[in-house]
Amino acid sequence: MATIIDGKKISKIIKEEIKSDIDILIQAGIKPHLTVILVGDNPASHIYVSMKEKACKKVGISSETIRLDKSVSESILLKKIDMLNKDNNVHGILVQLPLPSHINEAAVIEKISPDKDVDGFHPTNLGRLITGSENTFIPATPYGIVELLKRYNVKIEGKHAVILGRSNIVGKPLGFLLLRKTKTGNATVTYCHSRTSNLTSITKEADILIAAMGQAEFIKKNMVKKNAVVIDVGTNRVEDSSKKRGYRLAGDVDFTQVSNIASMITPVPGGVGPMTIAMLLKNTVYAAQKYSLKVGN
Amino acid sequence: MATIIDGKKISKIIKEEIKSDIDILIQAGIKPHLTVILVGDNPASHIYVSMKEKACKKVGISSETIRLDKSVSESILLKKIDMLNKDNNVHGILVQLPLPSHINEAAVIEKISPDKDVDGFHPTNLGRLITGSENTFIPATPYGIVELLKRYNVKIEGKHAVILGRSNIVGKPLGFLLLRKTKTGNATVTYCHSRTSNLTSITKEADILIAAMGQAEFIKKNMVKKNAVVIDVGTNRVEDSSKKRGYRLAGDVDFTQVSNIASMITPVPGGVGPMTIAMLLKNTVYAAQKYSLKVGN
Repeated sequence: MATIIDGKKISKIIKEEIKSDIDILIQAGIKPHLTVILVGDNPASHIYVSMKEKACKKVGISSETIRLDKSVSESILLKKIDMLNKDNNVHGILVQLPLPSHINEAAVIEKISPDKDVDGFHPTNLGRLITGSENTFIPATPYGIVELLKRYNVKIEGKHAVILGRSNIVGKPLGFLLLRKTKTGNATVTYCHSRTSNLTSITKEADILIAAMGQAEFIKKNMVKKNAVVIDVGTNRVEDSSKKRGYRLAGDVDFTQVSNIASMITPVPGGVGPMTIAMLLKNTVYAAQKYSLKVGN
Repeated sequence: MATIIDGKKISKIIKEEIKSDIDILIQAGIKPHLTVILVGDNPASHIYVSMKEKACKKVGISSETIRLDKSVSESILLKKIDMLNKDNNVHGILVQLPLPSHINEAAVIEKISPDKDVDGFHPTNLGRLITGSENTFIPATPYGIVELLKRYNVKIEGKHAVILGRSNIVGKPLGFLLLRKTKTGNATVTYCHSRTSNLTSITKEADILIAAMGQAEFIKKNMVKKNAVVIDVGTNRVEDSSKKRGYRLAGDVDFTQVSNIASMITPVPGGVGPMTIAMLLKNTVYAAQKYSLKVGN
């Protein structure tokens, strides 16, 4: 049986570390503040936003959610962001995705000041991830994954990391992090996706396998090398009449099967999920620290 | 014997295409202009810059090279770039790398307006490559490689592309291009580098093998799968007393050996090299087209 990588436990430790960073900022007269923009009434988005609000409160970050009707025009949304960019009391800005289809998501993300882009989705911040600039926000999910690997002393250098899924939010930035010339980098990185041929022959080669394609229990035992480290980014709802709510949460990995062959594995829930929120908080504090340096506090 | 991918021939065709784009711009009253900044006296940089000047002239792009002493301060260089950013007659700006060690290369690159960054090295442009924005400059070498694959009808979708070398200029951006959800994308992409273990077992899996690590004739026959397409980005000097100048140019691939097993291969010289210059010209014209759209010509 594999060692369980306990994201819940690690995220708690990180939140404690964040609290002491916040104390220092508050002593300098700066209360870190996150503004979230939520457009429309997507139920999942509402749940995510309220989770973020709660998490902020718990560590001492002030947060505010601006709720806009789903019919809001792109230009009004862009103006709102511009105001927040200029507001010195706002250190982090997050626009909850997805946006209604009449709004150009890329234009909205590019409007956020790169200095306040705590999601790390702005092209300038993604680009800095490639150039290896320290002065960037790392998207929360890949950031959390690297943190888990680090805190569980997983050797990354020289290992073959296979990433399933090429999203701009998880897969791609995770690859850059694992490629960096650092202690938590220097991996050989393979990106697989829906068009990949002979998928199993590639996943079988992975020392570190990261599943982020959003298909419930897709990764089976026969796809995993013995003693691989398996990171499961998926959170899928699977019908389950035995549950009161009618479904259960499942990752992209068949946990029951794969936990018998992997050396380490993240569970769903309690693996990558809690880390994502913790790293968002860390990014918000980093934004406030950047501001503090700028004003010389 | 493999088909030779003739970069010289294709680059000529592209330059002809560029000329007709330039004609349209000139009719609209815009003469595309590239300003190159060359700091210090690195002999290779001088050769590259003069090649770029010549190529501009040949297609009808006006160009100018600002030569600065190697002792120039970073702040003067940044001010110079700022002036060029504001100059409406300058459509493309290129700072020849490497810079002297007292200058922060990343800061210099970030100073160039993303709209004039014809090298495509600005983080905002690299980031847009990831998000798939059309509104970006693709770094010339990877851009040229994709163009070669396209014009030789190499099937990319679903194929395994293995890239040796993780530079910000070639390896990394090439990977994003091959990962895009386009006809010249949808490859499975593996990045290998100096820290990769079992390199041969990975290169042997490549349908498309791209060598960009700067080691003369490193790729031998035993590292290549039969009928692979092999792209050689290296340009290395190898001592050769039989040559008048005392050396010969060699790629990262042992051409004599590998051309017997590959289905297609780029030679050195005459493969990727000429394409790099052609794509720089294309980017400069694109910068002028962007400007033309902005001013409404």
